[in-house]
Amino acid sequence: MKGKLSLTILLLLLVPCVSGQDQDKETAFRWVEENSAAIQRVSLNIWRYAELALREFQSSRELSGYLESHGFRVERGVAGLPTAFTASYGSGKPIIAIYGEYDALPGLSQKAEPVRSPLVADGAGHGCGHSLFGTASATAAIAVKKLMEAGRLKGTLRFYGTPAEESIGGKNYMLEAGLFDDVDVLLGWHPSPRTGAGFSYSKAVVDVRFKFKGLAAHASTSPHLGRSALDAVELMNVGVNYLREHVKEDVRIHYVVTRGGGQPNVVPPEAESWYYIRANKHQDVAEMFERISEIARGAALMTRTEVEIAVGDDSHEVLPNRPLAELMDRNLRLVGPPRFSEEEKVFGRKLQEPLTGPFEAVLSERIEPLPEKPGQIASSTDEGNVSWKIPTGSLGVASYPVGIPGHSWQIVACAGMSIGQKTIAVAAKTLAATAIDLLKDPRLVEAARKDFEERRKGYSFRLLVPANRKPPIFQPAP
Amino acid sequence: MKGKLSLTILLLLLVPCVSGQDQDKETAFRWVEENSAAIQRVSLNIWRYAELALREFQSSRELSGYLESHGFRVERGVAGLPTAFTASYGSGKPIIAIYGEYDALPGLSQKAEPVRSPLVADGAGHGCGHSLFGTASATAAIAVKKLMEAGRLKGTLRFYGTPAEESIGGKNYMLEAGLFDDVDVLLGWHPSPRTGAGFSYSKAVVDVRFKFKGLAAHASTSPHLGRSALDAVELMNVGVNYLREHVKEDVRIHYVVTRGGGQPNVVPPEAESWYYIRANKHQDVAEMFERISEIARGAALMTRTEVEIAVGDDSHEVLPNRPLAELMDRNLRLVGPPRFSEEEKVFGRKLQEPLTGPFEAVLSERIEPLPEKPGQIASSTDEGNVSWKIPTGSLGVASYPVGIPGHSWQIVACAGMSIGQKTIAVAAKTLAATAIDLLKDPRLVEAARKDFEERRKGYSFRLLVPANRKPPIFQPAP
Amino acid sequence: MKGKLSLTILLLLLVPCVSGQDQDKETAFRWVEENSAAIQRVSLNIWRYAELALREFQSSRELSGYLESHGFRVERGVAGLPTAFTASYGSGKPIIAIYGEYDALPGLSQKAEPVRSPLVADGAGHGCGHSLFGTASATAAIAVKKLMEAGRLKGTLRFYGTPAEESIGGKNYMLEAGLFDDVDVLLGWHPSPRTGAGFSYSKAVVDVRFKFKGLAAHASTSPHLGRSALDAVELMNVGVNYLREHVKEDVRIHYVVTRGGGQPNVVPPEAESWYYIRANKHQDVAEMFERISEIARGAALMTRTEVEIAVGDDSHEVLPNRPLAELMDRNLRLVGPPRFSEEEKVFGRKLQEPLTGPFEAVLSERIEPLPEKPGQIASSTDEGNVSWKIPTGSLGVASYPVGIPGHSWQIVACAGMSIGQKTIAVAAKTLAATAIDLLKDPRLVEAARKDFEERRKGYSFRLLVPANRKPPIFQPAP
Amino acid sequence: MKGKLSLTILLLLLVPCVSGQDQDKETAFRWVEENSAAIQRVSLNIWRYAELALREFQSSRELSGYLESHGFRVERGVAGLPTAFTASYGSGKPIIAIYGEYDALPGLSQKAEPVRSPLVADGAGHGCGHSLFGTASATAAIAVKKLMEAGRLKGTLRFYGTPAEESIGGKNYMLEAGLFDDVDVLLGWHPSPRTGAGFSYSKAVVDVRFKFKGLAAHASTSPHLGRSALDAVELMNVGVNYLREHVKEDVRIHYVVTRGGGQPNVVPPEAESWYYIRANKHQDVAEMFERISEIARGAALMTRTEVEIAVGDDSHEVLPNRPLAELMDRNLRLVGPPRFSEEEKVFGRKLQEPLTGPFEAVLSERIEPLPEKPGQIASSTDEGNVSWKIPTGSLGVASYPVGIPGHSWQIVACAGMSIGQKTIAVAAKTLAATAIDLLKDPRLVEAARKDFEERRKGYSFRLLVPANRKPPIFQPAP
Repeated sequence: MKGKLSLTILLLLLVPCVSGQDQDKETAFRWVEENSAAIQRVSLNIWRYAELALREFQSSRELSGYLESHGFRVERGVAGLPTAFTASYGSGKPIIAIYGEYDALPGLSQKAEPVRSPLVADGAGHGCGHSLFGTASATAAIAVKKLMEAGRLKGTLRFYGTPAEESIGGKNYMLEAGLFDDVDVLLGWHPSPRTGAGFSYSKAVVDVRFKFKGLAAHASTSPHLGRSALDAVELMNVGVNYLREHVKEDVRIHYVVTRGGGQPNVVPPEAESWYYIRANKHQDVAEMFERISEIARGAALMTRTEVEIAVGDDSHEVLPNRPLAELMDRNLRLVGPPRFSEEEKVFGRKLQEPLTGPFEAVLSERIEPLPEKPGQIASSTDEGNVSWKIPTGSLGVASYPVGIPGHSWQIVACAGMSIGQKTIAVAAKTLAATAIDLLKDPRLVEAARKDFEERRKGYSFRLLVPANRKPPIFQPAP
Repeated sequence: MKGKLSLTILLLLLVPCVSGQDQDKETAFRWVEENSAAIQRVSLNIWRYAELALREFQSSRELSGYLESHGFRVERGVAGLPTAFTASYGSGKPIIAIYGEYDALPGLSQKAEPVRSPLVADGAGHGCGHSLFGTASATAAIAVKKLMEAGRLKGTLRFYGTPAEESIGGKNYMLEAGLFDDVDVLLGWHPSPRTGAGFSYSKAVVDVRFKFKGLAAHASTSPHLGRSALDAVELMNVGVNYLREHVKEDVRIHYVVTRGGGQPNVVPPEAESWYYIRANKHQDVAEMFERISEIARGAALMTRTEVEIAVGDDSHEVLPNRPLAELMDRNLRLVGPPRFSEEEKVFGRKLQEPLTGPFEAVLSERIEPLPEKPGQIASSTDEGNVSWKIPTGSLGVASYPVGIPGHSWQIVACAGMSIGQKTIAVAAKTLAATAIDLLKDPRLVEAARKDFEERRKGYSFRLLVPANRKPPIFQPAP
Repeated sequence: MKGKLSLTILLLLLVPCVSGQDQDKETAFRWVEENSAAIQRVSLNIWRYAELALREFQSSRELSGYLESHGFRVERGVAGLPTAFTASYGSGKPIIAIYGEYDALPGLSQKAEPVRSPLVADGAGHGCGHSLFGTASATAAIAVKKLMEAGRLKGTLRFYGTPAEESIGGKNYMLEAGLFDDVDVLLGWHPSPRTGAGFSYSKAVVDVRFKFKGLAAHASTSPHLGRSALDAVELMNVGVNYLREHVKEDVRIHYVVTRGGGQPNVVPPEAESWYYIRANKHQDVAEMFERISEIARGAALMTRTEVEIAVGDDSHEVLPNRPLAELMDRNLRLVGPPRFSEEEKVFGRKLQEPLTGPFEAVLSERIEPLPEKPGQIASSTDEGNVSWKIPTGSLGVASYPVGIPGHSWQIVACAGMSIGQKTIAVAAKTLAATAIDLLKDPRLVEAARKDFEERRKGYSFRLLVPANRKPPIFQPAP
Repeated sequence: MKGKLSLTILLLLLVPCVSGQDQDKETAFRWVEENSAAIQRVSLNIWRYAELALREFQSSRELSGYLESHGFRVERGVAGLPTAFTASYGSGKPIIAIYGEYDALPGLSQKAEPVRSPLVADGAGHGCGHSLFGTASATAAIAVKKLMEAGRLKGTLRFYGTPAEESIGGKNYMLEAGLFDDVDVLLGWHPSPRTGAGFSYSKAVVDVRFKFKGLAAHASTSPHLGRSALDAVELMNVGVNYLREHVKEDVRIHYVVTRGGGQPNVVPPEAESWYYIRANKHQDVAEMFERISEIARGAALMTRTEVEIAVGDDSHEVLPNRPLAELMDRNLRLVGPPRFSEEEKVFGRKLQEPLTGPFEAVLSERIEPLPEKPGQIASSTDEGNVSWKIPTGSLGVASYPVGIPGHSWQIVACAGMSIGQKTIAVAAKTLAATAIDLLKDPRLVEAARKDFEERRKGYSFRLLVPANRKPPIFQPAP
């Protein structure tokens, strides 16, 4: 705790010299404004592609091409992921990185209209706003690169194109491949209902499938010869629901049944459930994973079936970073929150209509105060593990109305029209300004590192995923 | 009981005059033998088409064309089912009918080889031997028609092409459309591991889906706002498993989970289970359906979800008919059981290898004795309801090795080679001989009717399916 | 089968010489009639004592005293059971034995009246009619002893006072102690709604308690620190209810929760369920016991608790004996069924009133035909194991109205008045006559032995109870 | 919020005039010290009686006699509770009340020794320290009364002897009977591991039994005729465990099975579970009660049984009161925390030994700081409802080692020796000083009332217990 306070004091002392950078920031901000048409094109292309995790072929090319055309060295297909890439500029220390996501979600295709109306029947849509996310991050990188090119900044700027956040956690594969090993500070952001620097823990999560194997038999003529894998799935679920009473308050366990048998007249020889196990701390997730695995084995024992436990992904809670949060907050206040027009508010109000309010606003136009102590959010992200490897700063920018549920068609609608587009400039400028500060002032990088070290001191980082795992690979449609 | 005994005595007295028909039977048998190449072609075509229930477009055309080419009047698309048809010859009373099935089963595509080897990856296959079934029944009809044409027999002969036995129960739709109303006696058969006249009850069955609707919510950030339809499905299943202790011994209840949620991070707003509820008597099925529906409503109440109970099909237990069983038995003994070659036995033994025997034979070459009292089998068929409407006689002919499970690729293999093909002649001849007897001797029809009336006396036939229901309609692929 | 048939023929040939014994039987019957007042006194004393299993102190003394006063050598407290005893007369071979039970059931205290009216509030009652059982068996033994004394019969006559049939299975402890080792034939009977020789299998049963141990914790302030033994009990029960689908039709599993926690605000550290597992064959019970034990261990694994599996008793299905059944049937027909007065029928009709009939009679006055093949009943008895050790013959005599449920106050009422008392004479005479036959004719003993050997040929008898177990011991109240 | 702040400021202004009361407080403190032997006698008598809820006949008489002997007007058997009483002195406004509890807990009998050693086998013990509670509260009342008698204070002082806190919630019956209607401020305290003024919400709780009725049947011969009430209990519990996923984080639901069937061979016709349903807010408890009742009804529907829902008690969360907390805090600091001797610490350390520490102290000798905002504890009390009726102040005084679980024999041991006895003086003095302040300064009463009004503004108080319910009545042993 002591360390953190002194860092904060240090930062306050630094403020005067920081202001010397304002001219460079202005230059960067101007670049963002002057290129708004091109930026918007990139964003709307990705919005239209609306490609699912691991299949972001066009989106990945769009974004990497955008950076390449502005002089970045691009490496595609990194970490064995066809749609992952890195884009670099400059050399030497510090290495400041920005990452961007661009995968869409199934079933959420939607026109840029305030009533439910799919663009493509049963198609995918950017229900998490990643079309904005990737574009703004890349834009920030380009704006900073212009200053480096002009000799105003030194070091390395790197962009990470991180696919499949919504499914397997692309960042985790990139992290395991050592791609983040030399980075000093990583910056990111996320579309959100409110604007503010990120200073919260997320929940850690493990994504795991329990695959049971039994023995088929005619369910009417010889049920006693069958071993029902579906019975095992259900008994495991019952066991887990009993466990809920005996877990810490912050634990979240949720599951679906992904295979539940074929026809009723056959005792199901195979059945599968898919679990997310979350808690505020990864060590609690690991403990819960152990207990739930025991329940799975108990269910197998009860039914004379066999169980395979397949961990799909494992993400730590995001480790907040105070100096980076303060820096991001300061730059965000320099940039200012998004401001929305009357038409946009009418659009937003229509989106809010089906929801049970009241809400404090339609579209938030303020910047949230930076909380004294780290907050805690109930969702999870594959930024988690990375944030335990390198100091990571983040940001939320209002890009859809307050009260809109995550992963909804309403977010797709906003991302496809001006509400979402406005977000890009705010995010890109704030990220750029923060990167400028970090590239200019090594003491800021040092402060971020120090806070990082202290927060993870004594922590033994381990993951539940198998070593040397390979991601699933998809091919682009011909 | 009294009535049945006297009928049996009556039939014994009739035997001498029955033997006068042997010449006509010989004519019919000869027709079957002389046309074996063409018959086999029809059967193997249907075997290759291997079309799923309600999609038997080519198979239906193959079979109806076969009958049409031999002078039957064909009506296609009856009862609102595109692949159902009737084929008629002659006029007036009695009306003797034969039915044939021709739908395949999913996932069972297999070459005519004794080791697992799909003809089409993930394709369908005749795992219930319906390619033999339809062909033999139609062949019997044609052989009898030849005698009618020659003036040897009077009355009406009708063939029913009955699709979708494996799913919605095509016969039930045809029955509801009144298509069987004027029939005096209906005859059928089925490929089987053993040869013998049918004199058994099957189990009655209702096929029903329980569709629960809840409320989606983010499973981690607001689980208390969700209403899980999957919880309802699971709680219903738990309830049903508790019910098992408190049902009669002959009840069978089995289910699969057909919808179990999307992704774990969304509280499942929709989920569904699919049940078969069986018992020896339909009234017990109806009672069980009521109790299980209460359990479903209990699960909805427990979870604040809503449940829709959708009955897909409802079939009675087959009502056995003693005079028809005796007649079929007598004609079967006249025809003799199938005889298999050494090569066929080698083939059969290979199919048996993975099974835990011992078995009394590889391929049965005997005729089972007709039991004194009706037997009881544990499976079900859509012949059930029809058998409560008109006297129905049936037959099993050995067409695959003893011990082979129903609905297996081994049955597909046999149906595609000589083992299965041999069955056709035995079945076709026995059905033809039985139809000849019935068309010649009204006392036999009368005896069948009398036994039928006595067995169903006082029974109030009712079904659980909604009135005026429509079958699902599929279109042939372009 | 061959063996059995020839035995039956042998017995038929023996009938002429058997009839020479009728004079001795008449002597025995006369003794029973002349001593009816004393016999009734013994029976009504035991009826009034109505002592629970293992606490039959007065009843045991009453019955052993009755035998002792008639010249039997009595040994009390055998097999470590204070209320078990043997009473012997004579010496040498054959050793023919009769057994009697005398334990009552909790909560069934009732006056000898046809409406519910407890003799002692919350007291016990002879709801299984064992007050008649013990008395009639002892009376038979005494009547036969009189003939032995008179030099009419040779060999050994032994009476077994077998306590605790209703709970731990006293006979099993006596069997394990070797008390039945030298017996040639054992005879018994049971009060019943109908009269007939016993020729049925009962169900085998294992009586087992599953005791779970967890960890207490305040259920509101620290539920995550607790391990709920009650959760384990419930999850095991859910698992067993799922198993029901996958067992043979004749299996019966039923349980109660004997410990379910203390106060809701404490996570239950201990909980227990009590199971009966039954099937027609003991080997199926053993297999089910194994599977249910796996379910218990699965539940322990699911809840991080520990389970102790305590088998309380294990009884085989009764092994029927054809020659003994035929002998018993013949003697029963010599004695004749009980006949009831009009008053007794009025009394019986009142007892039947609350039940859903119709019934074929109020009080059965006929002798049931001996079935050709052994029947199968769904209940169980501790006679089971004994019947696998020595040839055992049994008998049922109508002692309460048709339709009356087992273990009911109605049976207590009948046992306390003339309906029940009449039964004693029929049972005592039939048992005595059968013992006379066996003592006189070694071929009958031989036939019983031969049938017994054949029926259990190749069977490896084993029990699930721990070796050298000790029964629970109670002390008489001061 | 505004109101509360100004009150606090007001209180600060009052401090000078408050200090004028210190002389009276000193008088009261002296009385407590000079009478310590007599006080200890009362406390140890109640400790030895160790009477269970509703059976505190001797304890109630001890405490009411103590007050009566010091000049209070005692009314016994109030609110229909034989062991409840009130004791009053003085007249007119304000009416300041103190309450005391004196019921023990089952199974916790323990000598005043640091290792487990029951005083009476299976006996009850003061595991919640109520022997100290009642005595200290009464002592405070007497000490204040001495000042009133001396003319130093005006108004009414009332003592409430409130039985059965541990079971039915005696205060709730007294509240329903209107006994608290005219009280201005109520004061209480509780033995605790730490010392501090009370300023926390507790959890609200409803205590409810779900009693299912089914139909008995022989579990082996006719299970299909039975309706298992135990099945209903278990299915309800499964349903509730599924509900856990979908409740707010602060909800606690815990249950035991109080009736789980008789013998396994009878389908259980009756079964019962006992639930505590808790949440931070009573309205959430009410909502949960509704949902759990639906689950109970769902379970009844699933099993064709009937359910009776019997609410035993319903307590709101305690409503904290800021001015009273501040007043209590100030007086507590005047009195000082308890100080423990080396021997007492050795004793305490032995009690802590079996627990997993580390703990910050053996026996707390400090006063906890008053928190700014009300805290939240996870347990519940029948003080809850009363605190919504009248402003209530409370206090905790260290009377057993840190880390000792509630309701444990360790607390009994401490209450029976000097550790616990020391507590009495601290509690009695603090309560007396607070009552003196309140009787002297109407502005304090007014401030407490105002805070109370604001906190419960707009709240519609309702209970789930049936109107006009009667408590269970027990008679003293002869």
